Amino acid sequence: MFAFFRPVLLVVGILTLIMTGLMSCVALFAFWRGDPELSVFLISAAIAGGAGLTLVLLGRQARFHLVARQLYLLTSLSWLGMSLVGALPLFFSHFQLSFVDAVFEAVSGITTTGSTVLSGLEQLPPSLLLWRSMLQWLGGLGVIGMAVSILPFLRVGGMRLFHTESSDWSDKSIPRIQTLARLLVAIYLCISLACMLAYWLAGMNLFDAINHAMTTVSTGGYATDDRSMGRFDERVLWVAIVFMLLGALPFTLIIAFVQRPRLALLSNSQVMALLSVVAVVSLLLSAFLVLNGELPLFSALTQATFNLVSVITTTGYASADYTQWGAFSVALFFVVMFIGGCSGSTSGGMKVFRFQLSYLFLRSQIRKLVHPSGVFVTRYNGKTVQDDIILSAVAFSFLFFLTLAVLTLLLALLGLDLVTSLSAAATALTNVGPGLGDIVGPAGNFQPLPATAKWLLCFGMLLGRLELLTMMVLFTPMFWRG
Amino acid sequence: MFAFFRPVLLVVGILTLIMTGLMSCVALFAFWRGDPELSVFLISAAIAGGAGLTLVLLGRQARFHLVARQLYLLTSLSWLGMSLVGALPLFFSHFQLSFVDAVFEAVSGITTTGSTVLSGLEQLPPSLLLWRSMLQWLGGLGVIGMAVSILPFLRVGGMRLFHTESSDWSDKSIPRIQTLARLLVAIYLCISLACMLAYWLAGMNLFDAINHAMTTVSTGGYATDDRSMGRFDERVLWVAIVFMLLGALPFTLIIAFVQRPRLALLSNSQVMALLSVVAVVSLLLSAFLVLNGELPLFSALTQATFNLVSVITTTGYASADYTQWGAFSVALFFVVMFIGGCSGSTSGGMKVFRFQLSYLFLRSQIRKLVHPSGVFVTRYNGKTVQDDIILSAVAFSFLFFLTLAVLTLLLALLGLDLVTSLSAAATALTNVGPGLGDIVGPAGNFQPLPATAKWLLCFGMLLGRLELLTMMVLFTPMFWRG
Repeated sequence: MFAFFRPVLLVVGILTLIMTGLMSCVALFAFWRGDPELSVFLISAAIAGGAGLTLVLLGRQARFHLVARQLYLLTSLSWLGMSLVGALPLFFSHFQLSFVDAVFEAVSGITTTGSTVLSGLEQLPPSLLLWRSMLQWLGGLGVIGMAVSILPFLRVGGMRLFHTESSDWSDKSIPRIQTLARLLVAIYLCISLACMLAYWLAGMNLFDAINHAMTTVSTGGYATDDRSMGRFDERVLWVAIVFMLLGALPFTLIIAFVQRPRLALLSNSQVMALLSVVAVVSLLLSAFLVLNGELPLFSALTQATFNLVSVITTTGYASADYTQWGAFSVALFFVVMFIGGCSGSTSGGMKVFRFQLSYLFLRSQIRKLVHPSGVFVTRYNGKTVQDDIILSAVAFSFLFFLTLAVLTLLLALLGLDLVTSLSAAATALTNVGPGLGDIVGPAGNFQPLPATAKWLLCFGMLLGRLELLTMMVLFTPMFWRG
Repeated sequence: MFAFFRPVLLVVGILTLIMTGLMSCVALFAFWRGDPELSVFLISAAIAGGAGLTLVLLGRQARFHLVARQLYLLTSLSWLGMSLVGALPLFFSHFQLSFVDAVFEAVSGITTTGSTVLSGLEQLPPSLLLWRSMLQWLGGLGVIGMAVSILPFLRVGGMRLFHTESSDWSDKSIPRIQTLARLLVAIYLCISLACMLAYWLAGMNLFDAINHAMTTVSTGGYATDDRSMGRFDERVLWVAIVFMLLGALPFTLIIAFVQRPRLALLSNSQVMALLSVVAVVSLLLSAFLVLNGELPLFSALTQATFNLVSVITTTGYASADYTQWGAFSVALFFVVMFIGGCSGSTSGGMKVFRFQLSYLFLRSQIRKLVHPSGVFVTRYNGKTVQDDIILSAVAFSFLFFLTLAVLTLLLALLGLDLVTSLSAAATALTNVGPGLGDIVGPAGNFQPLPATAKWLLCFGMLLGRLELLTMMVLFTPMFWRG
């Protein structure tokens, strides 16, 4: 029985130790800056290090021939563990954040959502700002790692589409995954550095450039100022647009491109669909803003593209309160919230490929309507797609809207109005960050929400990050009966 | 080529003649009451009669060995034709309704939606009120007829689940369908009479009882007074609850029960699910209303049950402005709007069986997650369900939310706020009637909407009534290439 949990403990332990390492880096930074939060990071690192070591010791000699149930447990508990460890410095900080606020901020960070309960960010000690950014950066790396190494082996939401080999998850897969992991970390690091450099060249100071680079490539969206990206000029915004989009691309493609640079790789149908959607809605909104006299042409183009890319890639930066741009803008931002980026990216949301599979499926349905006796095959990216993969992708949308409805009702039960409940539930499940309305909108702050609402949203963010079923399965009796 | 359209013309012609008959009845009623609208109904009947005869003559000698494409065209054009014919008396009336308003009111009537652009209903000539109610009654009959005779033959949204025989739609099926149709009309008429009697005994005057009976069993929701059902006492509301629920049951079951009364028939899983949902949400909302001191216990139970049943069965009566009952009530009414009644009923919405199939599918997905190599069979109502039926039911929800998003965006583009656009789009697609907010909410009126919005909502109501794909398929090039 204990052998069943051993690999889970080991992985959670290793992740905790990695986070301890990051905390120590922040502690060094705090020491260098003479930051009063130094002690906070030292204490947190001590606790996390102790916990991590204990878990690793408990989990040592784990066998990695894993069954599906172990993978689900391992994945869910890893994210839960990282959230709790991430909350430590926030909870111990001199700001006396309540436990729920510390956990909310950490979950929002590690899931790269970007909703915040903190205000007056510009007065926060730099070490805490750095820690928030690091949480998102790590979360972004984690979600790509999970998408590349674990999800394709699980029957969750059609992710098996990206299953490259027919083998199950076992010791045999480890060398291939280790190579992949090393490449992934290297490339993620390179993109982050490039982003930092670009921000710095575009006019940010070094500290802002480091922080925003980490929260851009992870499509997280934590900023270092309450105005989010509103205080930067248009050059910075365009840099952000490029790197947010890069963060929303399938990382396996980027890895393949690095190994063998061929432009054909980037003309992948998921990438093309994402870029087309971005182009169409950005032009549409720009035209709307110009025609309504809200903004001049180039400004409209920048603002519309930046904020839409920010929401579609589920980053969640804002350069302006786009909910003040009229009814159409509000509805558009609400709808595009669901799209999300590509599979295997740092983005959340429902993901472009699910919309594509559902569309292909609908097209084949319509063909069958017109020609009832015809036989049609669904092809995606030049390959035939099995029915059960389409089924699970389509079922994901059903489950998504069902979860959204339940979460909305629970939030409304706490007294939040419909727009706030609905958009908060949506922004949590899609890991976008801002919702709509005064409280959770781009100009608001999640602080005034009741504690229960914050717990519910934490749960929602984790559910969204784990493609719903990966985590939900743990709450079924079937899972525990084994 | 003309032979292809002949059956379509014949059916639309016959339906137009049936409506001419109903118009003549209203004309007789107007003559008896000395109603000033008599001439309006005579003119309308003359036009409709002429059009109907022409169509029947053009379509005579049609062969009824129909291919799928003819069925789609026939179904869509029938509803479109009935809407236009239904709009005649409204357009010609002395109230000088604009063309769009007349069509909107007729579409809302014939699709049994119940959204209205008319106000001061209590001052309307009784003949016009009667015509509105008749449209809904006919629409209710039409939708059951369609669900029983046509939809199971089409591959639309999983309705093939209710396909009783393996044969295609052909001359051979006609005798069976004729028997079914006669039974259906008889039973529908009996239930309507019973409802009328019950309303009358509960205290309505005869005219109100007739009108409300017609709009209750058809789950339409047109009332004869701007206060909707708000002016009646609790006895009337409970009568309405019973008959709205009856209208939301699968009519094939009611027919089977009449032919061979066995209680087991009514313990059908779709019926049980609908009643359970109604019971749970009604008790929940009642408790919420009592705990918040909004209403005393029995009043809360009546008001909550009545308004929730009204929305869930997609009737759309209101006995109070439930959007004033607090945030939870608003969110709850918004969410239950989507549920809808059973398949083969007069209700719209997404339908209970689709939620059940999607749930069963999710359960089997979760089983597969836990036991990747297991083989699981989905059973519904004691029968194995084929994968492709589940697929089309699940895909329906995806298409539904996609259509909802597009319609919401188009309405928002006209300047309507998010809650109005979203709830108006939802209430049209689900054929419920009232939405949320000042304009389209239960205390509002669709009159102030821009004309384009009304056209869009007409389209939405027809789409919803035709289970989306039946009508959407006409807009694909594939359909017309044949």
